[in-house]
Amino acid sequence: MKLHPGSRRAPCRRIERGGSARLTDAVVIEEPLELRVDGEAVATIMRTPGSDRRLSAGFFLSEGWISGPADIGSIALCGARGPKDGENVADLIRAPGASPAAPWAALRSLAATSSCGVCGKRTIDDVLGAVRGARKLRGRRRELFPAGTLLAIPAALRKRQVIFAATGSLHAAGLFTPSGDLLMVEEDVGRHNAVDKVIGWALLERDLPLRGAGLQVSGRVSFEIVQKAHRAGIPLVSAVSGVSSLAVDLAKRAGITLVGFVRGSSLTVYTHPERIAPP
Amino acid sequence: MKLHPGSRRAPCRRIERGGSARLTDAVVIEEPLELRVDGEAVATIMRTPGSDRRLSAGFFLSEGWISGPADIGSIALCGARGPKDGENVADLIRAPGASPAAPWAALRSLAATSSCGVCGKRTIDDVLGAVRGARKLRGRRRELFPAGTLLAIPAALRKRQVIFAATGSLHAAGLFTPSGDLLMVEEDVGRHNAVDKVIGWALLERDLPLRGAGLQVSGRVSFEIVQKAHRAGIPLVSAVSGVSSLAVDLAKRAGITLVGFVRGSSLTVYTHPERIAPP
Repeated sequence: MKLHPGSRRAPCRRIERGGSARLTDAVVIEEPLELRVDGEAVATIMRTPGSDRRLSAGFFLSEGWISGPADIGSIALCGARGPKDGENVADLIRAPGASPAAPWAALRSLAATSSCGVCGKRTIDDVLGAVRGARKLRGRRRELFPAGTLLAIPAALRKRQVIFAATGSLHAAGLFTPSGDLLMVEEDVGRHNAVDKVIGWALLERDLPLRGAGLQVSGRVSFEIVQKAHRAGIPLVSAVSGVSSLAVDLAKRAGITLVGFVRGSSLTVYTHPERIAPP
Repeated sequence: MKLHPGSRRAPCRRIERGGSARLTDAVVIEEPLELRVDGEAVATIMRTPGSDRRLSAGFFLSEGWISGPADIGSIALCGARGPKDGENVADLIRAPGASPAAPWAALRSLAATSSCGVCGKRTIDDVLGAVRGARKLRGRRRELFPAGTLLAIPAALRKRQVIFAATGSLHAAGLFTPSGDLLMVEEDVGRHNAVDKVIGWALLERDLPLRGAGLQVSGRVSFEIVQKAHRAGIPLVSAVSGVSSLAVDLAKRAGITLVGFVRGSSLTVYTHPERIAPP
């Protein structure tokens, strides 16, 4: 299949009840974009490359840096694509006589609004440093998660999603043991909040690092979800939906098993399959 | 049906090909939580209330403010629930002798990592001010969107989601006309980025405000999605999935028609149904 520019090939292993196969999957590209106003970095967001001029223009409008097209002198895109090739930067040069930025723009300057890997980190180096500098998780022994457990967890999680059942619109995260027990389930309008809630539960129970538990999420896995798992010492992250390129990179470096597309009778393992016992 | 504490009743109108009915739906609650470290506000996140102690503990760990349970002196929760009842605040008092915050914690201080309505805004007043102070969109004439157009857009959008087709894991946003033409479609790992991209496209084409267009999103609608539509002058936001309580509040104030659960032959209108022509 022809590879779309917004995606990248990733070697993976598909495990089904009948056995497993090595293959190459396409994963969506997630990369940092540094946004600057008149040369000063105001935010770094995680995004799929490809429409950077539009993205940055929309961001500057949404975040109050400009009020309309007349405020744009130019948007300079610099740096090559790809984390290995240097910076991804969009620099807004405000037009002479542009209306002033909204008073709340500066307040939000370090914030970002991607739903996927929001980064208050100011530079791309900070983001990629987190990948390169990731320390591998080490435990006294390696937990082995049976594939059957991973396949059963999404349905078990769904049963405990009480707010989802009421509203049909919510994210969930759960911590589970290799034997398939759900230790804790939390829901939230925010994907990242649901993960923070279950990790916070373990923290308050003084049960960190969570070396013996897997993290299941109801949606996709982006960079920051893996980062949170890494902070909490969780060795396996599993998702009903897909994974991003940077999530794969970080999981590989950090020694975390990353599983996607856990659906029905099959799942796809992107990193560290040695932690999964085949069916 | 008994109402779950994480949800709220919202009057709405369900439109099907056969006709329409007024009913009451449950929507997930989205509310700001202000996070403080030793009394100083470091972030405001949009979350579903209910596990605030866990959420804030997990957030402080993920964001580098603490390294483990021993660093927590206490987490004080103050303020009543609900936007009308005052503040929602979680204040971390660091333990005496706690390990210092990670060097990147401060960098991320104004950022937040909810996937839904990330707010760099520092206080709850800023967030709620955006709802209370929203100016109603006004146009010379009111665009009328036929229900049939709204029902057809998700399939049309899906056909243009090329990266999704390749990776199975992505968000999309599209701008469409009342007659059902898709003006522009964008995809991204981030929900908010996809919206910023289509709005940025219109901005660069000097086509703002977008008074004659609807915004379709592939996922859910949270507070910030409506906020972005409002900035761009878009009168109608439509989603395949559900809407949050604060999205409903802001859309109502801002004069924006908010539509959720556009699936198959039915859709649900939460605010300003006068812009929709029944089938």
